[in-house]
Amino acid sequence: MQSGRFTIEKLGEAKFSSPIERLEGQTFVNDHERLLYSPHLIPVTETIKSGKEPEGFEIAGPRANIFFNPPKTKAAIVTCGGLCPGINAVIRGIVMQLWYRYNCRNVVGIKYGYGGLAADADPFMTLEPDSVTSIHTAGGTILGSSRGAPTTKEIVDSLSKHKIDILFTIGGDGTMRGASAIWQEIKKRNLKISIVSIPKTIDNDIPYVRRTVGFETAVMEASKAIHSAHIEATGVPYGIGLVKLMGRHAGYIAANATLANGHANFCLIPEVPFKLDGKNGLFELLEERLSLRRHAVIVAAEGAGQYFFNGKKGSADASGNQALQDIGIFLKEKITEYFAKKNLPVVTKYIDPSYIIRSQPANSNDQLYCARLAQNAVHAAMAGKTGLLVGYWHGEMTHVPTSVLENKNQNINPAGELWFNVLELTGQPQEIG
Amino acid sequence: MQSGRFTIEKLGEAKFSSPIERLEGQTFVNDHERLLYSPHLIPVTETIKSGKEPEGFEIAGPRANIFFNPPKTKAAIVTCGGLCPGINAVIRGIVMQLWYRYNCRNVVGIKYGYGGLAADADPFMTLEPDSVTSIHTAGGTILGSSRGAPTTKEIVDSLSKHKIDILFTIGGDGTMRGASAIWQEIKKRNLKISIVSIPKTIDNDIPYVRRTVGFETAVMEASKAIHSAHIEATGVPYGIGLVKLMGRHAGYIAANATLANGHANFCLIPEVPFKLDGKNGLFELLEERLSLRRHAVIVAAEGAGQYFFNGKKGSADASGNQALQDIGIFLKEKITEYFAKKNLPVVTKYIDPSYIIRSQPANSNDQLYCARLAQNAVHAAMAGKTGLLVGYWHGEMTHVPTSVLENKNQNINPAGELWFNVLELTGQPQEIG
Amino acid sequence: MQSGRFTIEKLGEAKFSSPIERLEGQTFVNDHERLLYSPHLIPVTETIKSGKEPEGFEIAGPRANIFFNPPKTKAAIVTCGGLCPGINAVIRGIVMQLWYRYNCRNVVGIKYGYGGLAADADPFMTLEPDSVTSIHTAGGTILGSSRGAPTTKEIVDSLSKHKIDILFTIGGDGTMRGASAIWQEIKKRNLKISIVSIPKTIDNDIPYVRRTVGFETAVMEASKAIHSAHIEATGVPYGIGLVKLMGRHAGYIAANATLANGHANFCLIPEVPFKLDGKNGLFELLEERLSLRRHAVIVAAEGAGQYFFNGKKGSADASGNQALQDIGIFLKEKITEYFAKKNLPVVTKYIDPSYIIRSQPANSNDQLYCARLAQNAVHAAMAGKTGLLVGYWHGEMTHVPTSVLENKNQNINPAGELWFNVLELTGQPQEIG
Amino acid sequence: MQSGRFTIEKLGEAKFSSPIERLEGQTFVNDHERLLYSPHLIPVTETIKSGKEPEGFEIAGPRANIFFNPPKTKAAIVTCGGLCPGINAVIRGIVMQLWYRYNCRNVVGIKYGYGGLAADADPFMTLEPDSVTSIHTAGGTILGSSRGAPTTKEIVDSLSKHKIDILFTIGGDGTMRGASAIWQEIKKRNLKISIVSIPKTIDNDIPYVRRTVGFETAVMEASKAIHSAHIEATGVPYGIGLVKLMGRHAGYIAANATLANGHANFCLIPEVPFKLDGKNGLFELLEERLSLRRHAVIVAAEGAGQYFFNGKKGSADASGNQALQDIGIFLKEKITEYFAKKNLPVVTKYIDPSYIIRSQPANSNDQLYCARLAQNAVHAAMAGKTGLLVGYWHGEMTHVPTSVLENKNQNINPAGELWFNVLELTGQPQEIG
Repeated sequence: MQSGRFTIEKLGEAKFSSPIERLEGQTFVNDHERLLYSPHLIPVTETIKSGKEPEGFEIAGPRANIFFNPPKTKAAIVTCGGLCPGINAVIRGIVMQLWYRYNCRNVVGIKYGYGGLAADADPFMTLEPDSVTSIHTAGGTILGSSRGAPTTKEIVDSLSKHKIDILFTIGGDGTMRGASAIWQEIKKRNLKISIVSIPKTIDNDIPYVRRTVGFETAVMEASKAIHSAHIEATGVPYGIGLVKLMGRHAGYIAANATLANGHANFCLIPEVPFKLDGKNGLFELLEERLSLRRHAVIVAAEGAGQYFFNGKKGSADASGNQALQDIGIFLKEKITEYFAKKNLPVVTKYIDPSYIIRSQPANSNDQLYCARLAQNAVHAAMAGKTGLLVGYWHGEMTHVPTSVLENKNQNINPAGELWFNVLELTGQPQEIG
Repeated sequence: MQSGRFTIEKLGEAKFSSPIERLEGQTFVNDHERLLYSPHLIPVTETIKSGKEPEGFEIAGPRANIFFNPPKTKAAIVTCGGLCPGINAVIRGIVMQLWYRYNCRNVVGIKYGYGGLAADADPFMTLEPDSVTSIHTAGGTILGSSRGAPTTKEIVDSLSKHKIDILFTIGGDGTMRGASAIWQEIKKRNLKISIVSIPKTIDNDIPYVRRTVGFETAVMEASKAIHSAHIEATGVPYGIGLVKLMGRHAGYIAANATLANGHANFCLIPEVPFKLDGKNGLFELLEERLSLRRHAVIVAAEGAGQYFFNGKKGSADASGNQALQDIGIFLKEKITEYFAKKNLPVVTKYIDPSYIIRSQPANSNDQLYCARLAQNAVHAAMAGKTGLLVGYWHGEMTHVPTSVLENKNQNINPAGELWFNVLELTGQPQEIG
Repeated sequence: MQSGRFTIEKLGEAKFSSPIERLEGQTFVNDHERLLYSPHLIPVTETIKSGKEPEGFEIAGPRANIFFNPPKTKAAIVTCGGLCPGINAVIRGIVMQLWYRYNCRNVVGIKYGYGGLAADADPFMTLEPDSVTSIHTAGGTILGSSRGAPTTKEIVDSLSKHKIDILFTIGGDGTMRGASAIWQEIKKRNLKISIVSIPKTIDNDIPYVRRTVGFETAVMEASKAIHSAHIEATGVPYGIGLVKLMGRHAGYIAANATLANGHANFCLIPEVPFKLDGKNGLFELLEERLSLRRHAVIVAAEGAGQYFFNGKKGSADASGNQALQDIGIFLKEKITEYFAKKNLPVVTKYIDPSYIIRSQPANSNDQLYCARLAQNAVHAAMAGKTGLLVGYWHGEMTHVPTSVLENKNQNINPAGELWFNVLELTGQPQEIG
Repeated sequence: MQSGRFTIEKLGEAKFSSPIERLEGQTFVNDHERLLYSPHLIPVTETIKSGKEPEGFEIAGPRANIFFNPPKTKAAIVTCGGLCPGINAVIRGIVMQLWYRYNCRNVVGIKYGYGGLAADADPFMTLEPDSVTSIHTAGGTILGSSRGAPTTKEIVDSLSKHKIDILFTIGGDGTMRGASAIWQEIKKRNLKISIVSIPKTIDNDIPYVRRTVGFETAVMEASKAIHSAHIEATGVPYGIGLVKLMGRHAGYIAANATLANGHANFCLIPEVPFKLDGKNGLFELLEERLSLRRHAVIVAAEGAGQYFFNGKKGSADASGNQALQDIGIFLKEKITEYFAKKNLPVVTKYIDPSYIIRSQPANSNDQLYCARLAQNAVHAAMAGKTGLLVGYWHGEMTHVPTSVLENKNQNINPAGELWFNVLELTGQPQEIG
């Protein structure tokens, strides 16, 4: 077994035969196979010729032998952090997969995030096919979510007490850090509890995972909000449509929605700093645009321009996320000030569609994706794998150790094609100010 | 001819035969007929038996004789005030009706509201069937809108200078006041210019008009925002979804969207005052609701509770609308304060979908309605009627003199069925606080 | 009390006080008041002056006194005929109104139409607020529907046996005929069972009712199908988009969707015959259109042109509806034949969206309408009124005796404004062929 | 340079510097690099260790040097075959890319498919940013499409005559065969015309391309049709909802929509034969399902079960596609027959949503994908590459020689995960009959 940074830990020997049927010609997934991190011929060839093994991910899917005895296994699901489209689809997928493919029917839902694993928490919800069959058509999460958590010890105490064998955590950064810590504590206690995570963050900023739960739906809805901003901007002389979108550290929603919609003139993201004043600053460029066309649309990711608030940092929230200052309201005010001085009667229409976007149900493509994540999370857990999240790479499902995520973020590469396409489409310069 | 308050003024004798064809069995509308203000038997009978004539509206539709000679007539369209769904559908309808039913092909669009009639304004847009044929599928207004206006004299000067025979104004309160003043000035100058208005206000608060342009679409979209609030509220423990909807003086959107969606627990409108603190105040009721169900949804019309801002009145905008203080942000802050003191960890998700709602295209039922308004506005203008708006009453199209709108608003009757239904559905008491 | 054709029958004296609260200033509805059939001043005045009473409808709404003692009353709901948007919203509305406004909590749902009242039928469903609270967001009917019915005697036996006091029937023509017959049988047996109907037919063809359950949603969806036909027609040279819409005897959906969408060149409805061949026949007009623009869109109501199938009548279905021959497929074939002879390579794209339209949930405006129908149906039934349906006239809710519907249909008036508007929009001549 | 089956041909030496700017840190794509056909570690390592080079695709993207001199280059776009969502987005993307990234402004659109390159065809359309800026929000193709084509010689004559340097063909199987033949003829004549194709087939059946234009939107819309079938099926006793979806040789839409929607009980695709009668035949299984639940939903790809029509083959259409017999209508009739014999009163609701699906505009994710295809098609063509289509593999854009597509189809693997997931979800057996 490969022992690189992408090595997946296991609870022990997988001694049960998998109940998963195989069609004629279909095989189980081989634990030794890897999905190449880079699928490009030249670097791979060079690495191999130099006698090393190219990095790659363990491939997700059903194994011939499994660790847990399904009818005697108890699984739990917890959803943490902010809402996004598709959480219910993942819950449904896990329950269905456990019941129908593994015959594991002891499945509970933990209410309101990790908080539901506190000593004094609400009782768990029983999850069965009948109770989850239609939940994917609704937004949100039937389990409730929350930020913040009891101590890791308290959580592991609770898992032990309730004899939970597998914990599926559906969440983002904070949740993954939590899952990693929980797994370390479990290992210390020498318990046989598998912790398997599903990457859910609307910002799509989890490394080694190309696409998170509900991201495409979020882009679809965000794109509609930009369209509204465009209509409002063109509806008055010197109209400015300003849209704040999700994206604390990564501007993926802003960039993708800008590309999908096509009407924005400026796209501001956390990865690319910009100036307001001075030559080629945002305000000068905006003024030029307005004098040329009399309307403009600005898209700003919530994490953009946070350096404008130096010394005004908000406090951290219960998940440890630093509260951001509101770049949308800030820009709205500064733009008003600037053009008041210039005596140009601009009218700024500010749209903050965050909760409307987050609360949508997944579109059909995200439904399919959530179902695949769920199926593979169950395969991994039943095989006794742990401390991992289910990833997506080159169109295939993978296993990623949660430990490699520590202190890492996936961001837009300002020298990459995505950002280049945004610059081309908006016409904004590489450097603003 | 009846000379009551609903009498419609005319520019002069209608001496041209209408080019409008009539199908076999179809007649023109009779100027003497009235649509009864009240269609109820007992009051009508009593009035007639007492020798008086019951009040009623002139009925809209094509007349056998018309005042303007269509091929020599020049018509202009102006759109004023905030956006709402359906404005483009009205513009399209007027152009199509003028061209194809009256053979009047000299139609211009005035850019950016009454401001486009200032002495130094932009040139007009030429409006033809080819250029408007698909505009109804887009939100907003192709003409642009604005608040504020030049002086009435300047406007009439401009109408004279450009030899405009008919001005169609599409707007709300302020626009109607403007239209009324313009018509008075025209009369003073003894000009033969017809001013015909179409009631467009997303708040649906124009008296003698049951339904304004785009109102149903606005309710449809508002209802979706309440749904998002519900999903967010149920997604965390003690989640509160708070939605601010349009409605400066009238809570129609809030009330109707509350009824259509079904998830709100409190609906706050300008017509019904409420208290925050004390016995049965909003906060106490909210606390009860949260302790019972752990989530709550509040819908507030923007004009609700303005008395909380005593002495903090905003300045009037360019249309003379008094700027309102923001009840949504106010409630959000006060709720946070209240529960902080109570040590209840509520999470308030605040949604302000206004611009998203306003910028939608009209749904099919509003398309049909906008088309009817447009057709009848053209009939009225060609017949030389003036100083009127096209109304909707008992399911029929009517003429309403703009003069009767002065200092009047249509509001929700707190003792009527609509509000009663809201109380029943939300479960909120008749009196909050 | 008026005893004209619109007189509503009652089961007996209303001796219980209504539990419905009235807000300050709000009164109960007066049984003597009428909503004028015609709200036009001149005919009403003439009738009154001649000493007669103008015709009018009893007005729906809560009465001060009611016939049934709510806590001891058992109500049943049945849904019959084809699906349409909004049925679940009506069911929900009736249950909520009975429980929360009248405290009547014994409510059952009859499965699969009148068939659920056969002697050997399935047991009833218990209907409670919790089980119906979200059903309005789904299309179809949770009770199931069907065509056909047991004998009237069998139905009344079943109502008696199950001690049902009130039967709400939600359906169209056939259902109303059934409801009328059931009420006659009940009267003969001197039973005290109220039969109250809600007009549900997607064709909107019930007389004295301006709008049926789900009609606006149906038009909205139908309009989308016409748009698809337009896209397909313009996608190939000589493309013809052909859409068949619901409308057995009345072309309301076809006409309204044609107006709302704006792309159709021909609209064919049952009320207006047309010819295929010869001078000015459909084919010649179509050929002209194609040579001019290379594409065309035809909308046909399913009941249009049934005379082409002389001697080929289909058999009646279980509700007694004569099966229609398929005008859509017929036209498609005939068009292909015609242009094959002419050597013009037309490509006909045929769309039959019926089931897609019927199965949608109600849009928000229909949700509101369904709720009003439900509330007023309950008011009528609790007051002991019977043999009626809840109507909609001049924007108000009314009572209409089911007996007046016999052998009547509401149709599009070929000399009326609706049809005239269709002719204007499509450009098709008044007479085709 | 690799000379395997995936080698891309070039018109000649690329001697112009690319006008494409590179951001700091951004490089051009290297012609020698390959995207590995299989990204799996073990086979790749074995191949390399055995001294061979693993197969891979040339990677799409901008090259440092280009073949054509942009300001002197004339490009043409043609769209062929059936409609699908996203065609206009591709057209728009190509025009924008040519103008703004390459400064190539001589771009024409060919009307109605290859037919627009016939000697006597309509004049070309001029394509400019202003005329294409909003076309992506509409379904269909602004160029029109068609099946069939003039001879290859005639097409190349026309390309020569009009001095076209680059031809972008947007189409499926037939179009690719055509493009390949055109390129062979061009080579024979030693012309310097580049032929670059974009894979557009709603069936998603092009080999070496994971996803075709508009496929995700098609699945989204197809999933809605299945939902309608489910509502209709549950609306009557023994209701059967039957949906026919696109998929001549490959059941991707049927399989994916079945998974995304979740309500179908049977999914029938061309790749997996099934029997109607006998033990475990479709009818027996359907009968079991109906007796258990009283309703059922069947999804059939149009190419499923074509062997039932032996000897009844339809004629080929103008593109050489064999006309299929209608499996939807066939199943509807056979089901009716079968249950008539069994005296079970089933009601089959048949939905054929094909044209409604095909005519939708692309959803936001498909918009993004179409834009990427367009950009990379332009990069390839400007670099003088030819006889290729732009592919999508492991999430990256590639070049695929059109020659390798000959006589190949991409199909669902009946032993693969996709089909396995469908079996699991529907509960249908691996073998029907």
